[in-house]
Amino acid sequence: MTEAVEKLTKKSDDPSRWYVQLVRMAKLADYGPVRGTFAIRPYGYEVWERIQRDLDDRFKATGHKNAAFPLLIPESFLMKEADHVEGFAPECAWVTMGGDDELEERLAIRPTSESIICDFYRDWIHSYRDLPVLINQWCNVMRWEKVTRPFLRSSEFLWQEGHTVHATAEEAREETLRMLGVYQDTFHEMLAIPVLTGRKSPSERFSGAVETFTCEALMGDGRALQAATSHDLGQNFAEAFDISFLDENQNRVRPYQTSWGFSTRVIGAMILVHGDDRGLKIPPRIAPTEAVIVPIWRGKNKPEVRREAETLFSELKAANFRMEVDLDEEHSPGWKFNEHELRGVPVRVEIGPKDIEKGQVVLVRRDTGEKESVPRSGLAERLRDLLQTIQEDMLRAAAAFRHENTHNVETYEEFREVIAERRGFVVAPWDGTEETEAKIKEETKATIRLLPFERQEGKDLVSGKPGETAVFARAY
Amino acid sequence: MTEAVEKLTKKSDDPSRWYVQLVRMAKLADYGPVRGTFAIRPYGYEVWERIQRDLDDRFKATGHKNAAFPLLIPESFLMKEADHVEGFAPECAWVTMGGDDELEERLAIRPTSESIICDFYRDWIHSYRDLPVLINQWCNVMRWEKVTRPFLRSSEFLWQEGHTVHATAEEAREETLRMLGVYQDTFHEMLAIPVLTGRKSPSERFSGAVETFTCEALMGDGRALQAATSHDLGQNFAEAFDISFLDENQNRVRPYQTSWGFSTRVIGAMILVHGDDRGLKIPPRIAPTEAVIVPIWRGKNKPEVRREAETLFSELKAANFRMEVDLDEEHSPGWKFNEHELRGVPVRVEIGPKDIEKGQVVLVRRDTGEKESVPRSGLAERLRDLLQTIQEDMLRAAAAFRHENTHNVETYEEFREVIAERRGFVVAPWDGTEETEAKIKEETKATIRLLPFERQEGKDLVSGKPGETAVFARAY
Repeated sequence: MTEAVEKLTKKSDDPSRWYVQLVRMAKLADYGPVRGTFAIRPYGYEVWERIQRDLDDRFKATGHKNAAFPLLIPESFLMKEADHVEGFAPECAWVTMGGDDELEERLAIRPTSESIICDFYRDWIHSYRDLPVLINQWCNVMRWEKVTRPFLRSSEFLWQEGHTVHATAEEAREETLRMLGVYQDTFHEMLAIPVLTGRKSPSERFSGAVETFTCEALMGDGRALQAATSHDLGQNFAEAFDISFLDENQNRVRPYQTSWGFSTRVIGAMILVHGDDRGLKIPPRIAPTEAVIVPIWRGKNKPEVRREAETLFSELKAANFRMEVDLDEEHSPGWKFNEHELRGVPVRVEIGPKDIEKGQVVLVRRDTGEKESVPRSGLAERLRDLLQTIQEDMLRAAAAFRHENTHNVETYEEFREVIAERRGFVVAPWDGTEETEAKIKEETKATIRLLPFERQEGKDLVSGKPGETAVFARAY
Repeated sequence: MTEAVEKLTKKSDDPSRWYVQLVRMAKLADYGPVRGTFAIRPYGYEVWERIQRDLDDRFKATGHKNAAFPLLIPESFLMKEADHVEGFAPECAWVTMGGDDELEERLAIRPTSESIICDFYRDWIHSYRDLPVLINQWCNVMRWEKVTRPFLRSSEFLWQEGHTVHATAEEAREETLRMLGVYQDTFHEMLAIPVLTGRKSPSERFSGAVETFTCEALMGDGRALQAATSHDLGQNFAEAFDISFLDENQNRVRPYQTSWGFSTRVIGAMILVHGDDRGLKIPPRIAPTEAVIVPIWRGKNKPEVRREAETLFSELKAANFRMEVDLDEEHSPGWKFNEHELRGVPVRVEIGPKDIEKGQVVLVRRDTGEKESVPRSGLAERLRDLLQTIQEDMLRAAAAFRHENTHNVETYEEFREVIAERRGFVVAPWDGTEETEAKIKEETKATIRLLPFERQEGKDLVSGKPGETAVFARAY
């Protein structure tokens, strides 16, 4: 109850405070007792379930099957791939006791599962007939982060991790890009978030990969968020874990692997991309509630309005809409409007005595605030269309915002100015060296978010050497 | 490949060896590097997914929502409820390091989540308007077990745990029994396993509950398996975690809670109840593959038979059956029959040159071995009926087995004889004391599986004192 009384900070005033306040006020998540841990509350979890179902369907349609691998990874497994251990060991949570017994080898709670899955794959893969292996796992992982924020960066988070094995390098690369495309489709079609896709620079690669591809989204405050990644692992893990198979000519050879992940972090992206001063805006396809009915009654007409609201609720529920009706008698309609706007319900359905008289209701869009009166007779159809329109308009608005906040710059001075004052994506040539990348990061806090698939030639703004375009931004 | 060559031990010769061998040969699960951990392979995981979807639908239909709570529980939380800590602390895996830092308080990987969830509920519940809280969590849990077996008892397992909060003791008891009924329905309708339901004796209660209800199933070897439990927690946890709410009269009172769990253990039950010397029998509703087409070809007619098998496969897939077609050219039809019987595919569809000539196929039931020729024209309909019949017959067969192996005994001598030689459920009066319960356990290894909802009076076989019927068995 206290949450509803609290006043939401303005997004423009203090985006960080706005974010954490909104997460709690909208009951998406709550802080746990251990640093950086959170509970995802039913309202937030239902968003995740809807995204998860969509992705899972896409994984299955592209031939993948789910499985479950152990949570605990012996330290020696993590050490087998040199880059991998360097990347992950420092941020592991370690189990050192089982019951009352001190363990001989400490066990990491999986930060990611390549190493333990490869240990199984070594036993499961013998012949070219066993390939490709196309397996996905939905699970929790843990990374002992120092600075955390619900959804965006937490010690424990939920995700899926795909782990595939292929006979050739070409097939592995195809798979890596196919899954990047699957992610992109889910961002566009479900989350209404337009993402840029491309390669990571070598310094930003997944520890152990030969190439990492990424989906990068632009948040409302002009900072970028790495929203999902897909890795071509080459033969690195097959070497480290001694995975091999007999090919059609009876030669023993090493396979090629990929891995790809998508996490509850995307809920953070949804909040930051679409949210405003009034609260969340949840895209209709992933909204737990598509529309909420708020009856507007006064004294003596309350019973009639209440009855009509209940009837309307039953009708729309029967027509398969995810509906709520707010029959609370303690709060005013205005209070309820605020509350459901904060929760980001895509459409509000108002019904009062005059509407009943005229045989109509009022529909109010959360994304634009537009209102319209709609006859009761064709309501279901109109609501269906409106939800579809909102879904599309939210993607369009986010794409327009990204377009406005993507800057091609000509000089390093301009680069610095844009990053410091306007943020957004900055497109500029990069000479491909770690030195200029590091210098830019140090001086501007901007990192290379990705190297686009189609790159243009130009001169690096720092070194003046020939290079190709990269997309820079300050990132979450 | 090696798995297929291996010969399955007979169930009657050595049920333990048969079980672990079958789990691996059918590719349901595989052993992990840490003691008692397993990977659930895609074929096993798909069985779980089908059960999970069914249960999740039933949970939602009864008003529950899913959420996610943290994996790690501070030791001090576990200690708050005295019985609870005694029951679970000795079998926890403990995290003592985060990154390079020694933790101030060690953290248990959740063995079950009552304690951490209550910590959140204290903050979420203020008023009678916040009740009931009806939340479920699908997750992994860990118990550091000494003796483990895939699915049946493992250090880590997957499950769901429901955690609800109610204003009154009556509502909490109703919820406890409602969810017991939901479990029973899933066992009957999906797993084709008839379960007995009833109360646990006090010594077998969940640590911290005021009453535990259970679903008990009888395995093929005559031993019982506790298949799912539902707990009435009373106010024990609300006291320990200081959860309270203002009732309608503005009095601050303690709520009543329940918890209930159902795990991947049920896959072990499925194997043990239905499996036979030839391998698994998976009930059609949870089978990853409902029917497999095995073409029977010889030399020159191979192309035609192959083509027909592929056409048949497409037709049945289009009719929404979960189908496989085994076009492998290395192995004989007989080899394939064995392989798919081992995997427990409910129906085999054979098609050879004569069948093509006659416009028919042969359907072979995995559960009974019965064969029938069916015209191609009405095949989809016949297959749909047959799968339904198999589902029902498997439940009927398991119920008949349980009936044959449920014994009412008159004397303690008879009790001991039946338990030692025939196993099964033994129904006998119990005087309600821990002493006789312990004596029976020590002398016969049989435990009280449950106290039926309708009990009959009689004299305890050990003490001669008046008592009421209990169901005893040796258990997994």
